[in-house]
Amino acid sequence: MNVQEIDLHKLTVNDPFLGQYQQLVRDVVIPYQWDALNDRIPEADPSHAIENFRIAAGQKSGEFYGMVFQDSDVAKWLEAVAWSLCQKPDANLEKTADEVIALIAAAQCPDGYLNTWFTVKEPEKRWTNLAECHELYTAGHMIEAAVAWFQATGKRNLLEVACRLADHIDSVFGAEEDKLQGYDGHPEIELALMRLFEVTQETRYLRLVNYFVEQRGTQPHFYDTEFDKRGGTWHWPNHGTAWMVKDKPYSQAHLPLSEQPVAIGHAVRFVYLMTGVAHLARLNHDESKRQDCLRLWQNMAQRQMYITGGIGSQSRGEAFSSDYDLPNDTVYAESCASIGLMMFARRMLELEADSQYADVMERALYNTVLGGMALDGKHFFYVNPLEVHPRTLKFNHIYDHVQPVRQRWFGCACCPPNIARVLTSIGHYIYTQSENTLYINLYIGNRVEVPVQDSTLKLCISGDYPWHEQVKITIESPHPIHHTLALRLPDWCSEAHVTLNNQAVEQDIRKGYLHITHTWQEGDALVLTLPMPVRRVYGNPLVRHVAGKVAIQRGPLVYCLEQADNGEELHNLWLPNDSECRVIEGKGIFARKILIQADGVKQSVADADRESLWHYDVSPGSRQAHTLTFIPWFSWANRGEGEMRIWINEK
Amino acid sequence: MNVQEIDLHKLTVNDPFLGQYQQLVRDVVIPYQWDALNDRIPEADPSHAIENFRIAAGQKSGEFYGMVFQDSDVAKWLEAVAWSLCQKPDANLEKTADEVIALIAAAQCPDGYLNTWFTVKEPEKRWTNLAECHELYTAGHMIEAAVAWFQATGKRNLLEVACRLADHIDSVFGAEEDKLQGYDGHPEIELALMRLFEVTQETRYLRLVNYFVEQRGTQPHFYDTEFDKRGGTWHWPNHGTAWMVKDKPYSQAHLPLSEQPVAIGHAVRFVYLMTGVAHLARLNHDESKRQDCLRLWQNMAQRQMYITGGIGSQSRGEAFSSDYDLPNDTVYAESCASIGLMMFARRMLELEADSQYADVMERALYNTVLGGMALDGKHFFYVNPLEVHPRTLKFNHIYDHVQPVRQRWFGCACCPPNIARVLTSIGHYIYTQSENTLYINLYIGNRVEVPVQDSTLKLCISGDYPWHEQVKITIESPHPIHHTLALRLPDWCSEAHVTLNNQAVEQDIRKGYLHITHTWQEGDALVLTLPMPVRRVYGNPLVRHVAGKVAIQRGPLVYCLEQADNGEELHNLWLPNDSECRVIEGKGIFARKILIQADGVKQSVADADRESLWHYDVSPGSRQAHTLTFIPWFSWANRGEGEMRIWINEK
Repeated sequence: MNVQEIDLHKLTVNDPFLGQYQQLVRDVVIPYQWDALNDRIPEADPSHAIENFRIAAGQKSGEFYGMVFQDSDVAKWLEAVAWSLCQKPDANLEKTADEVIALIAAAQCPDGYLNTWFTVKEPEKRWTNLAECHELYTAGHMIEAAVAWFQATGKRNLLEVACRLADHIDSVFGAEEDKLQGYDGHPEIELALMRLFEVTQETRYLRLVNYFVEQRGTQPHFYDTEFDKRGGTWHWPNHGTAWMVKDKPYSQAHLPLSEQPVAIGHAVRFVYLMTGVAHLARLNHDESKRQDCLRLWQNMAQRQMYITGGIGSQSRGEAFSSDYDLPNDTVYAESCASIGLMMFARRMLELEADSQYADVMERALYNTVLGGMALDGKHFFYVNPLEVHPRTLKFNHIYDHVQPVRQRWFGCACCPPNIARVLTSIGHYIYTQSENTLYINLYIGNRVEVPVQDSTLKLCISGDYPWHEQVKITIESPHPIHHTLALRLPDWCSEAHVTLNNQAVEQDIRKGYLHITHTWQEGDALVLTLPMPVRRVYGNPLVRHVAGKVAIQRGPLVYCLEQADNGEELHNLWLPNDSECRVIEGKGIFARKILIQADGVKQSVADADRESLWHYDVSPGSRQAHTLTFIPWFSWANRGEGEMRIWINEK
Repeated sequence: MNVQEIDLHKLTVNDPFLGQYQQLVRDVVIPYQWDALNDRIPEADPSHAIENFRIAAGQKSGEFYGMVFQDSDVAKWLEAVAWSLCQKPDANLEKTADEVIALIAAAQCPDGYLNTWFTVKEPEKRWTNLAECHELYTAGHMIEAAVAWFQATGKRNLLEVACRLADHIDSVFGAEEDKLQGYDGHPEIELALMRLFEVTQETRYLRLVNYFVEQRGTQPHFYDTEFDKRGGTWHWPNHGTAWMVKDKPYSQAHLPLSEQPVAIGHAVRFVYLMTGVAHLARLNHDESKRQDCLRLWQNMAQRQMYITGGIGSQSRGEAFSSDYDLPNDTVYAESCASIGLMMFARRMLELEADSQYADVMERALYNTVLGGMALDGKHFFYVNPLEVHPRTLKFNHIYDHVQPVRQRWFGCACCPPNIARVLTSIGHYIYTQSENTLYINLYIGNRVEVPVQDSTLKLCISGDYPWHEQVKITIESPHPIHHTLALRLPDWCSEAHVTLNNQAVEQDIRKGYLHITHTWQEGDALVLTLPMPVRRVYGNPLVRHVAGKVAIQRGPLVYCLEQADNGEELHNLWLPNDSECRVIEGKGIFARKILIQADGVKQSVADADRESLWHYDVSPGSRQAHTLTFIPWFSWANRGEGEMRIWINEK
């Protein structure tokens, strides 16, 4: 498809729900993260990221501190600022960002190289350890920030830094003998250069992406070659081995992409890589890479994705495991992985408007991505379990990566700014704009203007998604415009219906989108009704972790039980299969949210019976009626520490 | 209680079931392990244990190879040989063992020190790293072997080595200023010196045990003191830190034992320690230590023990986790831990004849301990999961420690010889002999002579335990003897009954033992009937891993489903709560074993339905009748790789 990106200046989110999140990002998250980047949050792990740039720029003396990819936190923050300024100008914030950009430019080397770790610590070791050192990853985030800053402000200050950096990279990597025949251990440069190509139309960037993608996983293996060349050293001292070099599947580098059968390795790396590949496949009309995207998407979405839109079912390597291996309590499901999943889904939608991609995008957004941040905007989950039993966490080491409540910041702080940038750029995900059709993927309330031929189509989506079933799409363009609107019919909704000015519309459904071609006039109103009964969800029988269990979903939201409402021992709660689920209005922190109650059963036990571990013939518990209260899973752990579970026993 | 150990020369196991195991140990395991110790098993990890002694003795040159406690494999093998010779003399085997003992004696230092690792590699570093280096542990095994060899053969050759070693240890450790105020990171010396005291009556050994136990966990902490003294080095290079020094609970050294509330840390260390403490408490009439034993036993047995008699629910540290945290698939449950549990139970029974200890002993023996060895006697489990899904093991790192089938040998080969020595000395567990009463703990067929006052009580236990309900105890002493026999009434049996010469006996039941005081005459026959209906077992409601699930047990045997009988996807099998369980005779490798069948249900699914991971409102499987076939869990994984599970869904 020929698609055009939505101009975020022309889109205003006014959604009662996600609009609040955007406001939270503006009012709390961006200032908070600015403080964090400047080490002004006393209780949080230090960042030192701004200070690193000052040192690299020669404005200060001192030591580098932080991860080898610490710069990327600044880049992601800048990107969030850029998208936020599109929504709401803020001269002070823009000034701060411009100062940061000037600082970044000052830290850039004369040849275009930009990376404070290497510049400060080991300038002679640039580009000697791509497998481990994230130089292209960090560059990619800088490039993404630059594109966003240019798109948001029209300013070329960071874009010029980014182009110098990209040109430098292009001079270092490639098939030519005098170049490095390599690629980064952590994909990101690919998707970033695709974005840079979109704003610069510089085909060298496209060719470079293609080179990185096709070089990946070939033999002789670049990781081994550079490892030997640098004398067999490795970067991560605590790990005690060069495992990141040796474990090729970890970074999807064990085989050429075209030969990879399944989603594998570090989940964030996988979705970042595939985001770039899908973008490349579309712009290059590369059928082979499109097939790679389809194959690997299907494996991921049909066999390795949680009901929450989480991916990466194990802690070791923050990685995929294998088909249908989806444990609920030892899962990793990094927030960044679900953000990357949204990015991948967006690019797949641009390849082909098939609602399965938007369904996954929505699942990830409304569950894991929102769940990654506390309702206060100041606490974050890196890991997103579907079941937590806090008392056990500190004793059984299979749970070492799991936190029962969100943390203020992280030594590896990739997730918090990632959530900020995806929420501020959510407009890019709401629509897919092709020449003939405006696809509406997400029903987030907003007002948008999109160019259609020589005119501008203005429309407004309103409603109270995901809580209430009715979504209204009102045309606000003053002049009639003939165009197609394609409304996604969500997979969770079996009875969607649409009226145009109170008349039923023809059911022209293609790949999950209802197409309505019409000459749109000001005041035209489409009303999409998405009935939101409480639905019981069951796992594929191959997922052994949910056998005999049920999850509760309403609209796109997955629900869970928390100890705060249901007491301890959530594993002893049962939902009879004929029990009706009642929708109730939440209060307090759940105000304007919908909770669910149902008559359940609790297997409880007198203290005397608890003395024995194993009981013969008679189940040791007595069963009592117990009201089950479900809250939207994204909002769990906002009331302190307690048990939580999504999948509950069904009788 | 005043108890006297059964003389294994006076006890002959003729049990149809365990007798076969003893024969297997004699005919296969002992020769096989002798080959292993001499590195003659090509497919197995090398041992080098005998070679190490040759090098230490100066008979060969070469490098030490293996673990710092490699010597203990030889000691455990010698112990198994000793007990085996009690059952069946074997001049060649005895000669081989005597040669090994001569070799050991030659490797002993003039001052009594004995440890090939230190002698060969770092003689100057003796006794500088007790926290990590197992010197007293290894010594303990040598002492145990010496006691066994003395008891089995009457020869003092190894006993003298052991006494010199113990005397040397006594000269090194103690409260005196010129001694080390320390103890071993891995308990074992305590239980071994107790045994040595029993044969030598040397009270210094008893005092030394008391010192080790009371010094443990005191401040300033010995591990830290010796760590500082040796300049902060650590032994285990691959671990990258001195964690074994720092993690005090790992070796039950975080607090004095009297202040420890729960079973904690490395499970084998815990039960080895407590075996020694219970023995010490009895012989020293130490009420405080008896209370420690009771408290820690209760925590372990009532909150941290699997239905299989496995302990240690996590891989990291091969350790206990916390109360009621008993995952079935990521469990560790080391074979050695259940052997140690039998040893602890035996010493608790000697403190007080309470059948709860024998119940646990039996549970461990007939499930995890027997399960640790393949039916061929040549393959062993180190880790004993209650649920295995082989396809997932190699992809999800939470299963890195789990093997789907038994292995031939191990780099850390503690388990195989441990199984051999416990099976050959099983007579010590069958009876507890006090002045007034002969307690019968296990119904293993055997013929025994025990001294009673100035006479000898001879009796024979026969039957086909654990398969058939009837156990016969026949008196074979030629002269009448007035004595009490106390028959354990197993916890799994609710309807036990006993006749004496076909007459009902008085129900004098104390702490789970039926006491029968009688003047026993030749030909007197006690018939104990232990009805063995198939029983459904349920977990304490606090064990979240078995909520809604049931296990099948018959007699002391826990049963399981295997893929070989039941197909894949065992998690989709259900046992209705009204389904009758039928007992059937096994065939092939299950000949003379009893299997169980029941009408169950399988949730299956057409291929088309498998494409989606998550299904709304309708469970994606159709339910079909499916015959469930259960095998005794100890015999799983004798037919190649496949799924297995003990806990199954109950409807």
